[in-house]
Amino acid sequence: MSQPLRLSGLVAATYTPLHADGSVHWERIPQFVEDLIQRKIVGLYVLGSTGEGISLTTTERCDVAAQFVEAADGRIPVIVQVGSECVAASRQLADHAESVGAAGISAVSPVYFKPDSVSTLVETMAEIAGGAPSLPFYYYHIPSITGVALNMVEFLETGAERIPNLAGLKFTSQNLFEFQQCVEWNNQQMEIFWGVDEMLLPGLACGARGAVGSTYNYASSIYHRLLKAFAEGDLQEARRWQACSQLLVKTFLPFGPRAAQKAIMSMIGLDAGPCRWPNRNLTPAQYEQLREQLKSIGFFEWQELTP
Amino acid sequence: MSQPLRLSGLVAATYTPLHADGSVHWERIPQFVEDLIQRKIVGLYVLGSTGEGISLTTTERCDVAAQFVEAADGRIPVIVQVGSECVAASRQLADHAESVGAAGISAVSPVYFKPDSVSTLVETMAEIAGGAPSLPFYYYHIPSITGVALNMVEFLETGAERIPNLAGLKFTSQNLFEFQQCVEWNNQQMEIFWGVDEMLLPGLACGARGAVGSTYNYASSIYHRLLKAFAEGDLQEARRWQACSQLLVKTFLPFGPRAAQKAIMSMIGLDAGPCRWPNRNLTPAQYEQLREQLKSIGFFEWQELTP
Amino acid sequence: MSQPLRLSGLVAATYTPLHADGSVHWERIPQFVEDLIQRKIVGLYVLGSTGEGISLTTTERCDVAAQFVEAADGRIPVIVQVGSECVAASRQLADHAESVGAAGISAVSPVYFKPDSVSTLVETMAEIAGGAPSLPFYYYHIPSITGVALNMVEFLETGAERIPNLAGLKFTSQNLFEFQQCVEWNNQQMEIFWGVDEMLLPGLACGARGAVGSTYNYASSIYHRLLKAFAEGDLQEARRWQACSQLLVKTFLPFGPRAAQKAIMSMIGLDAGPCRWPNRNLTPAQYEQLREQLKSIGFFEWQELTP
Amino acid sequence: MSQPLRLSGLVAATYTPLHADGSVHWERIPQFVEDLIQRKIVGLYVLGSTGEGISLTTTERCDVAAQFVEAADGRIPVIVQVGSECVAASRQLADHAESVGAAGISAVSPVYFKPDSVSTLVETMAEIAGGAPSLPFYYYHIPSITGVALNMVEFLETGAERIPNLAGLKFTSQNLFEFQQCVEWNNQQMEIFWGVDEMLLPGLACGARGAVGSTYNYASSIYHRLLKAFAEGDLQEARRWQACSQLLVKTFLPFGPRAAQKAIMSMIGLDAGPCRWPNRNLTPAQYEQLREQLKSIGFFEWQELTP
Repeated sequence: MSQPLRLSGLVAATYTPLHADGSVHWERIPQFVEDLIQRKIVGLYVLGSTGEGISLTTTERCDVAAQFVEAADGRIPVIVQVGSECVAASRQLADHAESVGAAGISAVSPVYFKPDSVSTLVETMAEIAGGAPSLPFYYYHIPSITGVALNMVEFLETGAERIPNLAGLKFTSQNLFEFQQCVEWNNQQMEIFWGVDEMLLPGLACGARGAVGSTYNYASSIYHRLLKAFAEGDLQEARRWQACSQLLVKTFLPFGPRAAQKAIMSMIGLDAGPCRWPNRNLTPAQYEQLREQLKSIGFFEWQELTP
Repeated sequence: MSQPLRLSGLVAATYTPLHADGSVHWERIPQFVEDLIQRKIVGLYVLGSTGEGISLTTTERCDVAAQFVEAADGRIPVIVQVGSECVAASRQLADHAESVGAAGISAVSPVYFKPDSVSTLVETMAEIAGGAPSLPFYYYHIPSITGVALNMVEFLETGAERIPNLAGLKFTSQNLFEFQQCVEWNNQQMEIFWGVDEMLLPGLACGARGAVGSTYNYASSIYHRLLKAFAEGDLQEARRWQACSQLLVKTFLPFGPRAAQKAIMSMIGLDAGPCRWPNRNLTPAQYEQLREQLKSIGFFEWQELTP
Repeated sequence: MSQPLRLSGLVAATYTPLHADGSVHWERIPQFVEDLIQRKIVGLYVLGSTGEGISLTTTERCDVAAQFVEAADGRIPVIVQVGSECVAASRQLADHAESVGAAGISAVSPVYFKPDSVSTLVETMAEIAGGAPSLPFYYYHIPSITGVALNMVEFLETGAERIPNLAGLKFTSQNLFEFQQCVEWNNQQMEIFWGVDEMLLPGLACGARGAVGSTYNYASSIYHRLLKAFAEGDLQEARRWQACSQLLVKTFLPFGPRAAQKAIMSMIGLDAGPCRWPNRNLTPAQYEQLREQLKSIGFFEWQELTP
Repeated sequence: MSQPLRLSGLVAATYTPLHADGSVHWERIPQFVEDLIQRKIVGLYVLGSTGEGISLTTTERCDVAAQFVEAADGRIPVIVQVGSECVAASRQLADHAESVGAAGISAVSPVYFKPDSVSTLVETMAEIAGGAPSLPFYYYHIPSITGVALNMVEFLETGAERIPNLAGLKFTSQNLFEFQQCVEWNNQQMEIFWGVDEMLLPGLACGARGAVGSTYNYASSIYHRLLKAFAEGDLQEARRWQACSQLLVKTFLPFGPRAAQKAIMSMIGLDAGPCRWPNRNLTPAQYEQLREQLKSIGFFEWQELTP
């Protein structure tokens, strides 16, 4: 029941569409899901960093999760990110996600108070994972945001004993030394999602199968080509597509990664609306500047490629 | 209406008493408040870092705030800390605190997503402060936890224009260079609470009037003596009491500041219960070890001093 | 012989005057020393961060140290900073400083490889201090630059056993919690120089006697007034002069602290020349801009005050 | 003349052999070089982090560099790392290396004072590289040690204009996003050595040709197998050898990377002696413990493999 999902391919870290006033734009969720299915996305990771889960109220998080599950309608699995500063609230979110039919649960560490050791992190995650005991649970490792830079191999070792439904990690760090060890840990017992889009190729070289990311929402075509080249052993071709991905990321990063990517979604007809505070949105001038830069790197032509 | 409170003396950053199972121990709140009033505490700062506000659910935060206000019953002002990762939730908490009779509002920055500039922080706080427009609002600056190390003089400059009820800061940083500038800013327009107990004396030297801290809950007697000596110009005597405070802090820090201080509360008959995850509680052996160490530095005799 | 110097008052962290081509401007050293003596400076701390010791060759460091000692000619003591990445070289520099008549030695930690513990730092400093066994040795603690943030109370405890000529610290950190403990350690056995000019007042409140700093080279008059007011128990007046100091620091910091202060020296007729790479010098336009800002805060009038 | 060396394969970051008293053990240098040539190492990178260049005196650095060049005797190229805190000294070291026949120069950034921008770093490196104008110059990027985390693509863009002999980078960071961009920059104009041994495979996937590292001194056999598997397109086999490398690194890291690796050298008959302070050496008990652990992972059998 709580076995790893064993996804292979691109998992979209979905955006939460908002109205201009910051409220959730519910009607857009089914539209986004349909688009992602057409893009041959193999799973959805909702309410993570990309989905601004942490910036939504508990009620909104429940409703957004339910809406994505309903829209996916069993065609692709939905993993719900339930991490927050309050472990009790996260456990309730896990319970709710299980009740509405999520396929998996994931949680980031509390950040305000930081676990002081691997065992504290494991206890904290055990509390959350226990809210959805029938579902596979993935710890969301993103030390650049959380500042929780504990060793993930040790987390798996301790966690596998303590958390019955521990299924793996969402691994968002450049540390491929640690990533490869996690992938291979205990005969590949765990499912380790790779979470750095602009380093998908080296992630694959180290054993990644499923990758969760934000750019897969709107640039899936170049990553499908990367995956295909890699599968065929053509690393030079794979590097070529990875370079496109890197050019894309390099282009939007200076505008603020959250808001810039929501702007990109709008530019291709998938209006995700603004970000919530404390993420600052692009000014109209910045929006146009970003569009021009994306045009000059050929981004909009990638949309024409077959998925 | 939303003028600074202009408190002079010790403000307790209150503990949120919990049962052994982690649920809120409501009956203890009035007991704590009576004790603090007897200790000549001049105000309460509830649901901050000490009160684990961020580790409680939104409902619990509302109820704890209301309970403290009711227990204080107008005898001393209650400032409610409403900061969280979700600005919308924080604004609701501010609105609720205003409705139940809080005397002031305070908020820490979101931490998961960090404001990228002073102006973004100001916009974020404006959103929260707007939930309680009739109350003075204090931004809670604690960069060692939040990683938001923006310049507070610039915050006051920008914030005074944009946030009608901005009344000052809770300043928890060793940076007395910045603190003194904030105190003196615009003819001392703002109220800057000093938040580093083990550095109260240098804080006073730089112009602090009100100080918010956790150790004032259980070691107020030494700080009252420090304040008295300082008022009388006897810095040597003030240093002597500050040294007691430093010895105390040095003693409990290795046990983890949150859980160790809750243990200290219990040791003097004010059972605050455990901390919530991810703060790890003391083992019984650690509890005894801490008690022995406190005994050897004379801590328990300080309780016998007149407040 | 290697007793603490027990200096009380302002110790100048001297500049190393350079020619426009970056070579040492030897003739300026005596001029600087005379000026500092007129300013009632009670000691010289040469080749520290202000003196760019680390950016000079070993030969240059020897010669600069000797030159300052000769110019001081016994009127005020000279402490020579000998820290570097290479412990063997630092030991040689200590030996040389002793041989030319320095009054004390100081050393910063290696930075490229960082000591992994207090005991490693103590061993490293023991090696250096052993080069000048007849002179008092002061460890130079400046964690904002070195990243070596080990506890200084523990350093004193371990170091006092292991380093016969350990005399104290140059303490350049805002952490007055730790500073006060160091001052009071073992019945004030050690001499702890306070190293944060813009926080001199709170340093004094915590027990500082001697203070080492760069701004004392050119703004001594305001600090002498601060010291006088403090000695007379007039903290409000002391804060007023500290505020001048803070305004000064706030003004030059955005230009880069090293190069901006060398520019300030030139503006008052003490041409210190440029900094060496990797410190970037001010453009002529920046130089004029800084001069204008200093004029508007009244800096140049401070020069007219009696020392 | 100053064209990139275009090395393909393993470049050893050599150890500087020391006597027990810390002085350089000159006789060992030729022995080490012969061993490395037998291991099919394609180049030597001397006096970097592994070689403790920064912990040696300027005179020692000159002599060690000359000794390595003489021992290599033109059979494999020697790159000399000349970075230090003092740019003038580094320039002299570059000049000396050129005069004794080094094949290339490399320099790390000053660390005590950090360049405030890419252009400042470029100016600083231009000054150093100018000391050996006939040799290719490689900036040594190792932000985990230096704290200088400037963007390397921008460094290449600015540096290519300003530094005539700029030939590339030694890139020691997990950031393969940036690495791949550097490799591909301006039609692969630059030579970017990959510097993370435990991530060699993902480095190769991103386009690495030459790799500089410390473990190649004593575990070359597993890396040659990794390289062969990669060249044949057998990524699974390559991962298997990378896993061996990761197990090795994971084993010695807790003992302190510098001293532990010098101990490993001794265990296989290449006595490198101790490290200098502030690197702490292994106790005899730790040495035995490390040997046991290495035995249990099969390390000593790797020495039997044909290179």
